[in-house]
Amino acid sequence: MKFYRSAYVTPVIALLLLSSLSCAPKQPTSAPENATDASRPLASWNDGLAKQAVITFVKDATDKGSSKYVEPADRMATFDQDGTLWVEHPLYTQAMFALDRVHALSAQHPEWKNKEPFKAVLANDQEAIGKFSESDWAEIIGATHAGMTNTQFSDIAKQWIASAKHPRFQSSYTELVYQPMLEVLEYLRANGFKTYIVTGGGQEFVRVYGDKVYGVPQEQVVGSSILTKYDDHDGRGVLLREPKVFFVDDRGGKPVGINLFIGKRPHAAFGNSTGDQQMLEYTQGGDGARLMMLVYHDDADREYSYGPAGGLPDTKVGTFSQELMDEAKKNGWIVISMKNDWKRIFPSGK
Amino acid sequence: MKFYRSAYVTPVIALLLLSSLSCAPKQPTSAPENATDASRPLASWNDGLAKQAVITFVKDATDKGSSKYVEPADRMATFDQDGTLWVEHPLYTQAMFALDRVHALSAQHPEWKNKEPFKAVLANDQEAIGKFSESDWAEIIGATHAGMTNTQFSDIAKQWIASAKHPRFQSSYTELVYQPMLEVLEYLRANGFKTYIVTGGGQEFVRVYGDKVYGVPQEQVVGSSILTKYDDHDGRGVLLREPKVFFVDDRGGKPVGINLFIGKRPHAAFGNSTGDQQMLEYTQGGDGARLMMLVYHDDADREYSYGPAGGLPDTKVGTFSQELMDEAKKNGWIVISMKNDWKRIFPSGK
Repeated sequence: MKFYRSAYVTPVIALLLLSSLSCAPKQPTSAPENATDASRPLASWNDGLAKQAVITFVKDATDKGSSKYVEPADRMATFDQDGTLWVEHPLYTQAMFALDRVHALSAQHPEWKNKEPFKAVLANDQEAIGKFSESDWAEIIGATHAGMTNTQFSDIAKQWIASAKHPRFQSSYTELVYQPMLEVLEYLRANGFKTYIVTGGGQEFVRVYGDKVYGVPQEQVVGSSILTKYDDHDGRGVLLREPKVFFVDDRGGKPVGINLFIGKRPHAAFGNSTGDQQMLEYTQGGDGARLMMLVYHDDADREYSYGPAGGLPDTKVGTFSQELMDEAKKNGWIVISMKNDWKRIFPSGK
Repeated sequence: MKFYRSAYVTPVIALLLLSSLSCAPKQPTSAPENATDASRPLASWNDGLAKQAVITFVKDATDKGSSKYVEPADRMATFDQDGTLWVEHPLYTQAMFALDRVHALSAQHPEWKNKEPFKAVLANDQEAIGKFSESDWAEIIGATHAGMTNTQFSDIAKQWIASAKHPRFQSSYTELVYQPMLEVLEYLRANGFKTYIVTGGGQEFVRVYGDKVYGVPQEQVVGSSILTKYDDHDGRGVLLREPKVFFVDDRGGKPVGINLFIGKRPHAAFGNSTGDQQMLEYTQGGDGARLMMLVYHDDADREYSYGPAGGLPDTKVGTFSQELMDEAKKNGWIVISMKNDWKRIFPSGK
């Protein structure tokens, strides 16, 4: 493994703190199918401004008589993942994966016992982990996400995601997706929209479960990525993952990624944090029906509560700043209150 | 405009020579719809190994009883563009565009009259143009493809492609697409395949006409790209094109691009030059039905003849080396003889 200089994690993982890892675990939830009922679109949404905005948008976009009609080929909708489609607290799922991988790989790296940042991870020293610098996270990502083929990485991630449990909910992470957002994904697809995930997280990581969990196939996952290099591998052709950043799909990188991968300005975009502002701006800047929405985590009982917008607890994981809230109000973006707009949070019915 | 250091054109344009620009023009062709007849798939193909290979592949891929069956979600087919889907001689169309843009922009750049490489372009000095170095081409690309928004670039390219004529055929470039390949694109799509263009050329350039000409929408065009930067532009959100390479989608870059944009190994791949070898290797390296094909330009009368494989004239535009031919034979890739396999070349009937 080459020393990993590049700050891959800058906006992706380095912003996180582990301050709330000590939440009391609750009883496990069952493992339902993450399915929605097509005959009752948006069934998990309470009536209100947010639900109505989705319905009005779809009506305008699909009504040939409307001045806001959108041609089927242009019906693109983009969704941030962490905090928009699934739980991101106490820590981004992919960061949990990276930390678990350090434990899993430690037998092959006896030197890690005495080498930071690995030493702190192996000792479960959450205070130290919470203070990791960008280069600490970069070393961890380099050691856990590179130095293998893409297929090998996918297999590792697939195995992890199938068995890992969220520290508070004691459920699989893939069960901790937001039922109301699954319904939006499905409702848009039923109306001819192509749904994309546009995540600051790792593209190859999300691709492992995106199709099964969200109905979003691999080719519709746009994310941050590390450099890959082609190797003919005796004519079988593989891609080797290098410990170097290639693309950071966050903040201004989201419109860049959207243009690179989709080549069209989306008509709908969904986010939840400051990293999504530019995606929503970009989405708004065109003609026809437009829908910009932000998930606001104001439900400490059923999920989490954080801002700091609106005086909610400050956080470095999925920050929803007051500036973003002001921007949303100024631009007419819809802020979804998890507490008030969603009948339930998870497919399990919670 | 910043000085453009990066060798954007390395595999994309710099390999070209203008040696055959002086071909005698033939009579103009009419402008037909580039349409195919769905009731007669592959109608422009002569019976033979190549046509049969396409049919057998589709049969295997879509037959649930076959050990080579391919799930619909995995039916991905990738097509090189220059020399595989349309004419690339005497010069890549995008290079023609770049040279024309130098002329168009010259009034705004009086200094170009005395400054190489622009001076040679403005003087139509084809000998000098033929000897341009990589940095010459890089300067031309930087001056003609960057320093504007993506939308502005697309508008310029759209106008150019609507009016430019090929020097030999005196047709629009978009009429100089290969009818037999349009039929393959359509035949694969009719059988559930998603068709992608995977080009060493510029992604944004191909996106301007790819949907109309090939039925391949913007989100299915993978190509080389320059860096773009997001600018909020008073809340309208635009992407500014910078004179710096971002991704080179050629040779080993093709599998990298395929994984980045599609995330799945294709089951069929079509190319025509050494820049496509890795894409075909990568395509071959998986399970299920597989189809790897190379267009061989052996028809000087109806189109062009070049290799140097098989003793055809050597070329730096779309080189089909003897090594590639040997590789094709070794791996069982199908080499399409334009002369023998194709009843006609262009939609116009020629």
